[in-house]
Amino acid sequence: MTPAPVTPAPAILDLATDVVRLTRALVDLPSESGEEGPLADAVEAALRSLPHLSVERIGHSVVARTALGRPERVVLAGHLDTVPAAANLPARLDGERLYGLGACDMKGGVAVALRLAAALTAPARDVTYVFYECEEVEGDRNGLHRIATERPELLLDAGLAILMEPSDAGVEAGCQGVLSADITVRGARAHTARAWKGINAAHRAAAVLQRLADHTPERVVIDGLEYREGLNAVSVRAGVAGNVVPDTCVVSLNARFAPSRSPKEAEEYVRGLFPEAMFPPEEYAFVVTEAVAGALPGLEHPAVASLVGVLGAEPRPKLGWTDVARFTELGVPALNFGPGDPSLAHTPGEFVPVAQLARCEEQLTAWLS
Amino acid sequence: MTPAPVTPAPAILDLATDVVRLTRALVDLPSESGEEGPLADAVEAALRSLPHLSVERIGHSVVARTALGRPERVVLAGHLDTVPAAANLPARLDGERLYGLGACDMKGGVAVALRLAAALTAPARDVTYVFYECEEVEGDRNGLHRIATERPELLLDAGLAILMEPSDAGVEAGCQGVLSADITVRGARAHTARAWKGINAAHRAAAVLQRLADHTPERVVIDGLEYREGLNAVSVRAGVAGNVVPDTCVVSLNARFAPSRSPKEAEEYVRGLFPEAMFPPEEYAFVVTEAVAGALPGLEHPAVASLVGVLGAEPRPKLGWTDVARFTELGVPALNFGPGDPSLAHTPGEFVPVAQLARCEEQLTAWLS
Repeated sequence: MTPAPVTPAPAILDLATDVVRLTRALVDLPSESGEEGPLADAVEAALRSLPHLSVERIGHSVVARTALGRPERVVLAGHLDTVPAAANLPARLDGERLYGLGACDMKGGVAVALRLAAALTAPARDVTYVFYECEEVEGDRNGLHRIATERPELLLDAGLAILMEPSDAGVEAGCQGVLSADITVRGARAHTARAWKGINAAHRAAAVLQRLADHTPERVVIDGLEYREGLNAVSVRAGVAGNVVPDTCVVSLNARFAPSRSPKEAEEYVRGLFPEAMFPPEEYAFVVTEAVAGALPGLEHPAVASLVGVLGAEPRPKLGWTDVARFTELGVPALNFGPGDPSLAHTPGEFVPVAQLARCEEQLTAWLS
Repeated sequence: MTPAPVTPAPAILDLATDVVRLTRALVDLPSESGEEGPLADAVEAALRSLPHLSVERIGHSVVARTALGRPERVVLAGHLDTVPAAANLPARLDGERLYGLGACDMKGGVAVALRLAAALTAPARDVTYVFYECEEVEGDRNGLHRIATERPELLLDAGLAILMEPSDAGVEAGCQGVLSADITVRGARAHTARAWKGINAAHRAAAVLQRLADHTPERVVIDGLEYREGLNAVSVRAGVAGNVVPDTCVVSLNARFAPSRSPKEAEEYVRGLFPEAMFPPEEYAFVVTEAVAGALPGLEHPAVASLVGVLGAEPRPKLGWTDVARFTELGVPALNFGPGDPSLAHTPGEFVPVAQLARCEEQLTAWLS
């Protein structure tokens, strides 16, 4: 007899438990990008049980809104997905740290937002909670991108968005832009026993790598925050066979640029480092493969200023690209504020400090009450 | 009913036909490295039918020797295998050129040697004919290496070896040595948004590639022949992910060195280009992965001088590595002499000029008669 297929019972999230237990429950519900269904189901079910929220499901993303008619509305957003597991499941509480896949990036932040969604039945500001899928993968799969495209009205009425990405429980304002480009260095193939009949593209690529090594990235100050730019070869690929002079060497660049530059300006800046007189295009073909704007910190915005005031901590610049840029594109000022050290994101040993979970919950509760 | 398995009839080689038809028949008996069995069977059968030869089979290699008690003995050697087919079968005669897989490298040379084996029943010098497997693959599978290891007495009594590798029907003397090495450049990994926390190994590799680009290989004259050395990066590999500063960049080198240098001297020479003061070993780890000696041209040897005299052509230096080096290691002077343009070897369009097949056969017949 073949046993009937077993449908696992849907996971149940208890939003009334404390934030550490809730984070732990979220970590123990695996949700690598593309596999967020069960977690999204659990989040949706928990939120639908709260009468003060109206809930919508879009793919494996969930949006829940209060509708109290407050003069101001804020978004609290967090992604449900994680990078692939690295022998870091299940969650493990070790003194003041909760370890496990996504504990830092960003189930701690999601837990804080879920706690607020349950506890704040009548917040001083209307709140739109957004829990979304596929942040860790290609941008066209990103759940926030999908909501912004298909249902922008769910986001556009907010005066401020708080992305609960790990930022050490401080405010990280704006974010830098990202530009990716390939420089394809051309040579001529030959047998290494008669190398003088060819041109070694890898040798020729020395000039590109040396240019990058010599370059000092700029530091750009905006609203008193220093954005430290970067320009790196993230990949070098050359090689045909062990006895062949390679005719191609591809150097892939990753540039991080301050939000005061547009993607077009960033491209001009990077291209300008490789002038055609020294890097003729027939030998060094420069192709931009991706260019995404950053987000200005917008500290002068009253909603941002008010939050910063309540938190009582100096904002810092966000150096990595985050989805705050998507809100900026929609015209909604946005910042990063969430528990966890951002430099631990995507590391097998990631953890979130218990104290930061508690502090983020308290401070946002205070600001929203 | 399942048909009984069909064993194909063994191919029959007619050594009395002309050298062009014989080359064609050899090309049409496919023998990629490792698949030489049927061709070796046909060669063995054809040679065993000749009463003036004693024949031995070793793996898929065949050795046939005259035993006339002549004061001098020479080896005529050729490999039976080819590189993989590239839509270049069957053989095709187009005017003065015979096209097809292995026509140039080196079934033309094998055909000449087979013709001599059949025709010269009483040569002026005793001859050892060697037809061997697996020249185009790793050295430990090489049939000549196996014979030299298991049955060295079959080779050691010769005063000269002629390797019938394509050399445009001229004498290419000696061969260059080969040295392969990896330089592993170390850095420190970091997220590209915080690149200053890391060290980009690809940027650091610029110094290695620039050193190679600046290097002028030497030209070494031996016995009046110019050996043109070479030093090339044949592979560059760096890259962890699109947003990660790479902590490792591996540059693989291929050096061709004149036969007057030993492998040890070649290693010292190449290492010397990367002095530790500029390339500290903890940042630039240099590891030799292969070092194979070349072969001196040995033009002063009487047997070589006599052959060169009969051929009436100036010897040229052999730049690529060939099995002449194995004979040199055994103490047997060796040179390359065979039909076909060496630069066509391993190309899909390889061919052998009909005129060169005829000329090589005539000249060796004259020298051996």
